[in-house]
Amino acid sequence: MADVNDYINGEMARFKDELFEFLRIPSVSARSEHAGDIKEAASWVADRMRDAGLSASVIETPGHPVVLGEWKEAGPDAPTLLIYGHYDVQPPEPLDLWVSPAFEPTVRDGNLFARGASDDKGQLFLHIKALEAQLKGSGNLPVNVVVVAEGEEEVGSPNLVPFVESHRDRLACDAVVISDSSMFAQGIPSLLFSLRGLAYFEIHVQGPAGDLHSGSYGGAVVNPGNVLAQLLDSLKNSDGSIAIPGFYDDVMDWDEKTREAIRGLPFDQAEFEGEVRAPGLNGEAGFSLLERLWIRPTCDVNGILCGYTGEGAKTVLPAKAMAKVSFRLVPNQDPERVGELLKAHLDRIVPPEVEVTVEELHGGRPWKAELEGPFFEAARNALAKAFGTDPVLTGEGGSIPIVVDFQEILEAPVLLMGFAPPGANMHAPNEWIPLENFENGIRAVAQFYAELGG
Amino acid sequence: MADVNDYINGEMARFKDELFEFLRIPSVSARSEHAGDIKEAASWVADRMRDAGLSASVIETPGHPVVLGEWKEAGPDAPTLLIYGHYDVQPPEPLDLWVSPAFEPTVRDGNLFARGASDDKGQLFLHIKALEAQLKGSGNLPVNVVVVAEGEEEVGSPNLVPFVESHRDRLACDAVVISDSSMFAQGIPSLLFSLRGLAYFEIHVQGPAGDLHSGSYGGAVVNPGNVLAQLLDSLKNSDGSIAIPGFYDDVMDWDEKTREAIRGLPFDQAEFEGEVRAPGLNGEAGFSLLERLWIRPTCDVNGILCGYTGEGAKTVLPAKAMAKVSFRLVPNQDPERVGELLKAHLDRIVPPEVEVTVEELHGGRPWKAELEGPFFEAARNALAKAFGTDPVLTGEGGSIPIVVDFQEILEAPVLLMGFAPPGANMHAPNEWIPLENFENGIRAVAQFYAELGG
Repeated sequence: MADVNDYINGEMARFKDELFEFLRIPSVSARSEHAGDIKEAASWVADRMRDAGLSASVIETPGHPVVLGEWKEAGPDAPTLLIYGHYDVQPPEPLDLWVSPAFEPTVRDGNLFARGASDDKGQLFLHIKALEAQLKGSGNLPVNVVVVAEGEEEVGSPNLVPFVESHRDRLACDAVVISDSSMFAQGIPSLLFSLRGLAYFEIHVQGPAGDLHSGSYGGAVVNPGNVLAQLLDSLKNSDGSIAIPGFYDDVMDWDEKTREAIRGLPFDQAEFEGEVRAPGLNGEAGFSLLERLWIRPTCDVNGILCGYTGEGAKTVLPAKAMAKVSFRLVPNQDPERVGELLKAHLDRIVPPEVEVTVEELHGGRPWKAELEGPFFEAARNALAKAFGTDPVLTGEGGSIPIVVDFQEILEAPVLLMGFAPPGANMHAPNEWIPLENFENGIRAVAQFYAELGG
Repeated sequence: MADVNDYINGEMARFKDELFEFLRIPSVSARSEHAGDIKEAASWVADRMRDAGLSASVIETPGHPVVLGEWKEAGPDAPTLLIYGHYDVQPPEPLDLWVSPAFEPTVRDGNLFARGASDDKGQLFLHIKALEAQLKGSGNLPVNVVVVAEGEEEVGSPNLVPFVESHRDRLACDAVVISDSSMFAQGIPSLLFSLRGLAYFEIHVQGPAGDLHSGSYGGAVVNPGNVLAQLLDSLKNSDGSIAIPGFYDDVMDWDEKTREAIRGLPFDQAEFEGEVRAPGLNGEAGFSLLERLWIRPTCDVNGILCGYTGEGAKTVLPAKAMAKVSFRLVPNQDPERVGELLKAHLDRIVPPEVEVTVEELHGGRPWKAELEGPFFEAARNALAKAFGTDPVLTGEGGSIPIVVDFQEILEAPVLLMGFAPPGANMHAPNEWIPLENFENGIRAVAQFYAELGG
């Protein structure tokens, strides 16, 4: 490992120069005027993969291309790792809130500011540099490697699942590594133990055929707005738990050790309160704040529209009402099953004077990491050595659909190790990454390969 | 009365010609391009008052003028009646749904179609013609008369209360008669016994300072959309009654005779169902449909807005939620008191993690007729004679703010006798009035004066 670390130390200045070059390409996937930049970024990534010693190809999709890097000289008996990242970025707007330009990487106080610094160019690139350090520094890798760099993550990865499915053999692997998330706190390396899933619905309540005058009809006609409120209120109990019968049947009870570990994390509640700025915080009784975010399901109203919402008093008895409601799911819940339970629950309570329809808009399964095995152990040891402190296990309240997709299509466990700082402004102005995270990230990933080599 | 009826029969053809002339003036108060038509209509009405034998003046206001007709020769010991109506009309749009043009009065099957035929030109004009028949036919009236014809009823009468207040002495009267409503059924003359009042509120729930990601924050942050649903749901009981403590304290229990009379009305529920076209109808337990509309208060959601309401699934935990909620009130409820009760109720149940504000948008007191005394008896007898059948007493679910205003400012009871047919399309294309109603309306009002003369 000494040769590899020497290589990293000797080449670090160039690595950073190259990262700055990468960040200067405005590869905004959402904007057609950046199509040329996307192409340039894909080609640039392929070149850097080749520099590292991988073979690389830019593979067209119906959208933006996937860059595929491969090194399979560890032989058929060695395990294969798939590294996933993305080279596209969020739009930079609003531009006037950037202290330095979004596509002009600028270092202030050891922190690098640029769109894509954390999400995900910086994290994708540190993997390529770690591979380069291994292959150029030691001349070898203990595992075969496939790197998948997509260009549509920020627009919902519409072509990724078809790509993975149609390249199933070429992408076959024993584990998937993704670095597209954050560390629990600066200086504390983190591995994810779970992601929540999602079941998102639109509920429509239809009463009269058209809007009516609330004076001439009110009192004799059942109001869809009142009914919608009743239905939404029926979804939760006063203790913050969800009131749909059967909803908790598939909810996994985490072991006391994991729950203790969560409670032991150095969580900065004041910072969280500062982000939220509500008169108070609350959630499901019997669980800590982080448990409510990571290991417990939710029921949140995302939107409601009914009747007259403009200025002043319009005395309308609305014909209909609509709500968007979603549930964050935890292992082992299934979004389809949650949809069935929701519909059965509403069917039981909907008054016969209105018609209610439930539309399923989006579903994603929750995910739970394998917290054992050689890849997990190697990651834990590598992170501890590179950052000088043991990694913590964290959950993530949001959903990363590709994690479940990779796991299911490739039948391989996924390892999520993030190097972004908390509050990285990933989709906001002044996105940043501490240069220390970029440097230690390269060292951690290189160490990860060394650990796998035994 | 024979001379008066002879006069009416002899002049009826001219009365109708004049009505057609009146209806041809497009006096749309809401549109500035019709300002000249409004002026013309006001002047035309004043001329017809003079034809009838009244003195008339067109009195300017900050908006459209009031036409004031007066005949006070019955002497200071005779009672004084105030007749209120309006010469402005609703806009005629959508024009393409009119079978014959809105401002070209057309008779089909004995029914007169034109904007304003029922609301309110036809009804205002029949009062002027009844006065003419009395004064020209018999040469006398048993009461003094003031006619107030306003030109802003269809834009909310912004200048009427100030006008009435500043002309309090000139408008002093013993009773107010208004014909701007409908008969219960064609051929069945009607007197109103009550109007519902209104208390209209906007409820705002504020949670976090800004919208949050439902994955990263959901479960630990109280959702204003869920809270709003809880608050709205808390306003009603499952039996359709209102759950706000104290809400029914001021609700008058109508006597059993009135309730029996309501239940005895020839109400066409199938027609009502056809207008509503909902899967079913329901309301407060223990009351008939008409009772729910006329003599019981309501709580209706008029509008809700929260979070994301566009297409698809946006995983937002909204910062705030808003609902418009209104209560129809019945005697002796007071909108301000209802506002206090609502706020006290919400204060008791609002969770401390959100901030709730309640804004009062509009309030109007309910009204109850005096169902006895010489004016009421005269109206009842006159309607029975003119239509050949006893009038029925009906309620009205909506509010007519000027009724309460007249009653309070002038300290005189108000008599509401409508001659519009049910389904007159008052604010819709193809507004109409049966010519029979116009003719019998003149006879009924002339008879009303005769009855007052003893």
